[in-house]
Amino acid sequence: MRAAELVERWQVGRADDPGSLRLAELAESFGTPYYLTVSSVLRERAEALRGALPAGVAVLYSVKANGLLGVLAELATRVDGFDVASAAELESALACGLSGRRLSMTGPGKRDDDLAAALGCGALVVLESLDEAERLVRLAAGRPARVSLRVNPPFELAAEARMGGGPRRFGVDSEQAGEVLQRLAGLPLGFEGLHVYPGSNCLDADAIARAQRATLELAVGLAPLAPGPLRSLNLGGGFGIPCFPGETPLDLPRLAAAMTDLAGAAATLLPGCALAIELGRYLVGEAVAYVARVLARKTSRGRSYLILDGGLNHHWHATGALEGRRHLHYPIAVVGGGGRAVETVTVCGPLCAPHDVWAEGLALAEARPGDLVIVFQSGAYGAGASPGGFMQRPEAAQVLA
Amino acid sequence: MRAAELVERWQVGRADDPGSLRLAELAESFGTPYYLTVSSVLRERAEALRGALPAGVAVLYSVKANGLLGVLAELATRVDGFDVASAAELESALACGLSGRRLSMTGPGKRDDDLAAALGCGALVVLESLDEAERLVRLAAGRPARVSLRVNPPFELAAEARMGGGPRRFGVDSEQAGEVLQRLAGLPLGFEGLHVYPGSNCLDADAIARAQRATLELAVGLAPLAPGPLRSLNLGGGFGIPCFPGETPLDLPRLAAAMTDLAGAAATLLPGCALAIELGRYLVGEAVAYVARVLARKTSRGRSYLILDGGLNHHWHATGALEGRRHLHYPIAVVGGGGRAVETVTVCGPLCAPHDVWAEGLALAEARPGDLVIVFQSGAYGAGASPGGFMQRPEAAQVLA
Repeated sequence: MRAAELVERWQVGRADDPGSLRLAELAESFGTPYYLTVSSVLRERAEALRGALPAGVAVLYSVKANGLLGVLAELATRVDGFDVASAAELESALACGLSGRRLSMTGPGKRDDDLAAALGCGALVVLESLDEAERLVRLAAGRPARVSLRVNPPFELAAEARMGGGPRRFGVDSEQAGEVLQRLAGLPLGFEGLHVYPGSNCLDADAIARAQRATLELAVGLAPLAPGPLRSLNLGGGFGIPCFPGETPLDLPRLAAAMTDLAGAAATLLPGCALAIELGRYLVGEAVAYVARVLARKTSRGRSYLILDGGLNHHWHATGALEGRRHLHYPIAVVGGGGRAVETVTVCGPLCAPHDVWAEGLALAEARPGDLVIVFQSGAYGAGASPGGFMQRPEAAQVLA
Repeated sequence: MRAAELVERWQVGRADDPGSLRLAELAESFGTPYYLTVSSVLRERAEALRGALPAGVAVLYSVKANGLLGVLAELATRVDGFDVASAAELESALACGLSGRRLSMTGPGKRDDDLAAALGCGALVVLESLDEAERLVRLAAGRPARVSLRVNPPFELAAEARMGGGPRRFGVDSEQAGEVLQRLAGLPLGFEGLHVYPGSNCLDADAIARAQRATLELAVGLAPLAPGPLRSLNLGGGFGIPCFPGETPLDLPRLAAAMTDLAGAAATLLPGCALAIELGRYLVGEAVAYVARVLARKTSRGRSYLILDGGLNHHWHATGALEGRRHLHYPIAVVGGGGRAVETVTVCGPLCAPHDVWAEGLALAEARPGDLVIVFQSGAYGAGASPGGFMQRPEAAQVLA
């Protein structure tokens, strides 16, 4: 997605500039930098997704993407459940009104207190190994425990984060899963289904659909070995958003059509088994922008720099990781810069650290100290996934509008 | 440095196992994971450095490496001053008894409140541009302000972090520095000297010595253009510690000998100018270990995994960055594993994130769930530089022994 489209959507830098004025007001009220979450965008995305997908497919939100309570509260009534990665994420979900029935807990390194929290509210525990199942039985001490088994598939979704295929620490290898399922039958656990997560942040609808189809086939093969009929099959996520130059949005109608076919096949092949997808970035990524102020501009040996008042301490994924991906960068615009001349600049954070860089060699409207700069697509893995204490600078404000 | 030497130094895993017992006790008392700072190692390092270097060279501690108050308190009486990157770091330094005279503030993105804090206590402001100088004058409103000028040198120290040479956002290009110095003369600022930081984390004593010599020559060339005689020249840091396989410790005696020559030359070429070095990692890195517990072990398609109860959320530099550096890893040992068989394992953190990996294909004593694992060389850029809130897992305890 091009920054220009986002500028239009966010109404930043147009001739009449309504967005720019608002962003400047927020900067006055809350200081800079700040994250701005636009509730209407969040709601629209969740509702559009819900409307596009077949009714039988449950949508789960992956809290790790953005655990802000305001975000959780908006999504609580618009998705079917949340997936959490820790006891604290689970507490946040409960605080937003979700019952334990609507929660699942996933992760290869659950602590005893994580499992205890899941047991306490009746959340589904996505088991990553037989050892974990046995540990859960000990902790449950006779209480009911809802579980599913995470399977490491023999395929992967080619995307940013490959989390299936080959040797992995996530889940149980598919070729071992049958045996583990049979062992689970001997444990006092309430078995519900399977969980497969072949990859994340993919923009290719057909690739996601293929992985989902393969996941269904895998589940169909394993179902006869399960302790009981499969009641749920989590297909994982993988729905990406365009963050870097040249990327195009996921073709949701195309993917939804494939998922309608898939749901039909599942109804025949696995009767009584509900399908689910688990999304983070796709639900929240585009509803949030990060706004920082230009602290300084300088020229060094022919190269122009803008230095913002926030950087990797607030938004690690958009900056620090840059080192490895060279010239790729999140979409960035100068607030109110619509009519200005364009220059080529390197945009940096304030830290005395070489990898605190937002963008290198970026074509950007000329900006001066005091101007605001907006980084779009910032809703997932933002402040919550960043080293906020590094160099003990102020945290970014969180503004929910 | 080989993990075996560190195991010996930390008395972990030897036949009589005194360190192991102690680490296990601390785990019982404080929970896991925890960072263990050993004050005696911290003190010995600072004192050994002080003893090796010529008396005229001031040693400054770079607080960004580790801002724990217990660390600052130990170093407060053993180094000449602290360099800070923000108002909050400055407050920590003052709380540990340093006067403003012993503080400097560096960084390309200082906020107004950072500069105000420096002005308020008389800290040296290391100017990164003429614009910053003018901003400081406005904020000072007639109050005295101590300043030095950071110069981006025409050379760099080949090391992990290259922060000099070529176009940079740090400081003023050396070829512009003369003009900027002359402009500074017209501003009501108390000019004290120059600051050059050509790179960090270098293990080659000769390379550091060459960069220091080049820095002196640069300063000698600029001195006639300065608003007054140079009273201080900060040579930067660059003293590394061995963290990855095959690395050997910095040859401090060799570097100290070169610095003795350098100090002699400086006394002649820049009479009245005190030399300083600014170190973070070298002072604190080896005094701290990170201790985590094995939550799970598993085998996937022929590969063995250990999953610890902490990962990139606590120690980003030792894990997340791994993606880019392949098989390199910090020195790691199993506590009490001295007599056990060795296996090849991939050591992971607990997060459901693909880059939460401590080490791949590591030869390590066989470990079981419940065992403790120790990561050495963890004192710099540890918890303070890590995304502690990611997935809302518990923070690592900080234990000062």
